[in-house]
Amino acid sequence: MSEERYFVGLDVGGTTMKAAVVNNEGHPQSVPAVMDTHAERGQDAGLETMCATIRKAVADAKLTMDNIAAIGVATPGLMDIKAGLILDPPNLKPWKNVPVRDHIQKVFGKPTAYQNDANAAAYGEFWVGAAQEAKSMVLFTLGTGVGGGIIINDVIIEGEHSHGGELGHLRIDTPDRGRICGCGARGCLEAYASATNVVKRAREEMACWRGVSKLRNYYTANDDVLTARLVFELAAGGDDLARKIVDDTAYYLALGACALIATVDPDMVVFGGGMVAAGEGFRSLIDGYVKRYGLPFPTKTVKISFASLGSDAGFIGAAGCARLLVQKK
Amino acid sequence: MSEERYFVGLDVGGTTMKAAVVNNEGHPQSVPAVMDTHAERGQDAGLETMCATIRKAVADAKLTMDNIAAIGVATPGLMDIKAGLILDPPNLKPWKNVPVRDHIQKVFGKPTAYQNDANAAAYGEFWVGAAQEAKSMVLFTLGTGVGGGIIINDVIIEGEHSHGGELGHLRIDTPDRGRICGCGARGCLEAYASATNVVKRAREEMACWRGVSKLRNYYTANDDVLTARLVFELAAGGDDLARKIVDDTAYYLALGACALIATVDPDMVVFGGGMVAAGEGFRSLIDGYVKRYGLPFPTKTVKISFASLGSDAGFIGAAGCARLLVQKK
Repeated sequence: MSEERYFVGLDVGGTTMKAAVVNNEGHPQSVPAVMDTHAERGQDAGLETMCATIRKAVADAKLTMDNIAAIGVATPGLMDIKAGLILDPPNLKPWKNVPVRDHIQKVFGKPTAYQNDANAAAYGEFWVGAAQEAKSMVLFTLGTGVGGGIIINDVIIEGEHSHGGELGHLRIDTPDRGRICGCGARGCLEAYASATNVVKRAREEMACWRGVSKLRNYYTANDDVLTARLVFELAAGGDDLARKIVDDTAYYLALGACALIATVDPDMVVFGGGMVAAGEGFRSLIDGYVKRYGLPFPTKTVKISFASLGSDAGFIGAAGCARLLVQKK
Repeated sequence: MSEERYFVGLDVGGTTMKAAVVNNEGHPQSVPAVMDTHAERGQDAGLETMCATIRKAVADAKLTMDNIAAIGVATPGLMDIKAGLILDPPNLKPWKNVPVRDHIQKVFGKPTAYQNDANAAAYGEFWVGAAQEAKSMVLFTLGTGVGGGIIINDVIIEGEHSHGGELGHLRIDTPDRGRICGCGARGCLEAYASATNVVKRAREEMACWRGVSKLRNYYTANDDVLTARLVFELAAGGDDLARKIVDDTAYYLALGACALIATVDPDMVVFGGGMVAAGEGFRSLIDGYVKRYGLPFPTKTVKISFASLGSDAGFIGAAGCARLLVQKK
């Protein structure tokens, strides 16, 4: 009998769900099992797919359920973390009030942790990723939207309404002048710094930019051609307009970081998601703006870093939450 | 021998320091002992005054040091909470690197807790004040400046650089357009919502207000006559310009609350300080703006309240921190 304890982490997304077995040191025991979410097939089918993904993860790790100490499940909001419920997230329609935690717990007979996906990703980075040396950290995840998570001394700031770390909807400009966000409000960080909004800003700037720019070649291009990645690539190639847009993005992200420095004052602020590919130049732009616009004392030593676990952060963090659950008992 | 456990809470301010003995239920055992801080006499004299204030508090409670289980001391920042050091706060000049916690602990031979004054006030309100029913709360203290504290499940968010809950320097407008703050930055909440800045905004608005206003009678008045209190009184009396300034103040405070709702998502947001005297009308203005500009789901049920302990919150909270220290052991 092995002394090793194993945990399954499952990360449910709008398109696919991913699961893997993770050991006590946070190492995945196989490449993750991936299945299509097919939310449109309804929530009962969804719960079955979750169970199937978990079973496949255990099989892929060449283990049996007997080896598993606990399971962790992460899903996108809206949710009720304490009750273990998916409420009605926009990217899991038509699901509503899905008792995820109790279902998984019943099917497998294992202690089951439940967490918001961005919080789980933050916990993954805190546990074994970019922030493993930190005592407290904030994660901003940059994708179609902007998500976030806050960890302080091994505790995930879930919030009383499961809205802790909703960092995409932290305002960096005022409600009367800010850019309009997908959520309906104005001034949210997401309306500036999500991949979608990097492209939107590129289109807007193009329309009034007096200089020369290769972005002009994409004036009528669709969003599958004119992507945030393309803007970052053109910037890396020296295009002035693209550089301005990347620079502005760093500035907006730094304003988000500064708000977290004045509230929770973490050791480390981590940025994850596609934009991480832009590398050290982009990180150091953000770092510079944090030092310029943040509180002088904490910004002297706060670390601004990129995430290191990529898209594995979610299931690793979910497994970490499962581990916390068993530790607590 | 009494079973009752007692704690001394000491709240050190720029002008005076206050201490009282507090029992295990958070009730002060006398009116607080108050002594002048006289920071200009140097830090050694300051430490002696702290000890004298503590001794007077114990005597005023008709107790002896044998009855005291632990001591809590709160001071204004800058500070190193973990090290128990006052660094070099602007309102305690010329003090520098004062080892408060170790000194008090050595003199009295009691476990000694050390905390930021606004964090201590927040903990006081959380323990036995306005937020005693809450699981998590944020306090904004409105005075000459704006301070703050964040409590989540009985834990004070101190921050890794002792800057947790520096809510006066949370930005509610952008660095390029925001009002300039005493800290040198632009857009800080304090530059809008401190008592000083309520008056500044009143003066600015007076200069361009087209309507009739009684504030005009104070056009050349000094700041000891034209106070935030006067602005609030004129607003209560129906003066349109004064009402606009009070309304704007509520809006700015709500933006601060919204940022905290999107980060820590607390049960309750509490406002303390002089403006609390403005009463339910002002609270409900803030509440309305929070619902309008905050995340829809948490703002449905988050409670917006006024502090209930007044200027006793600091020493009561400091005593609460002492109690936490002994509980942990």
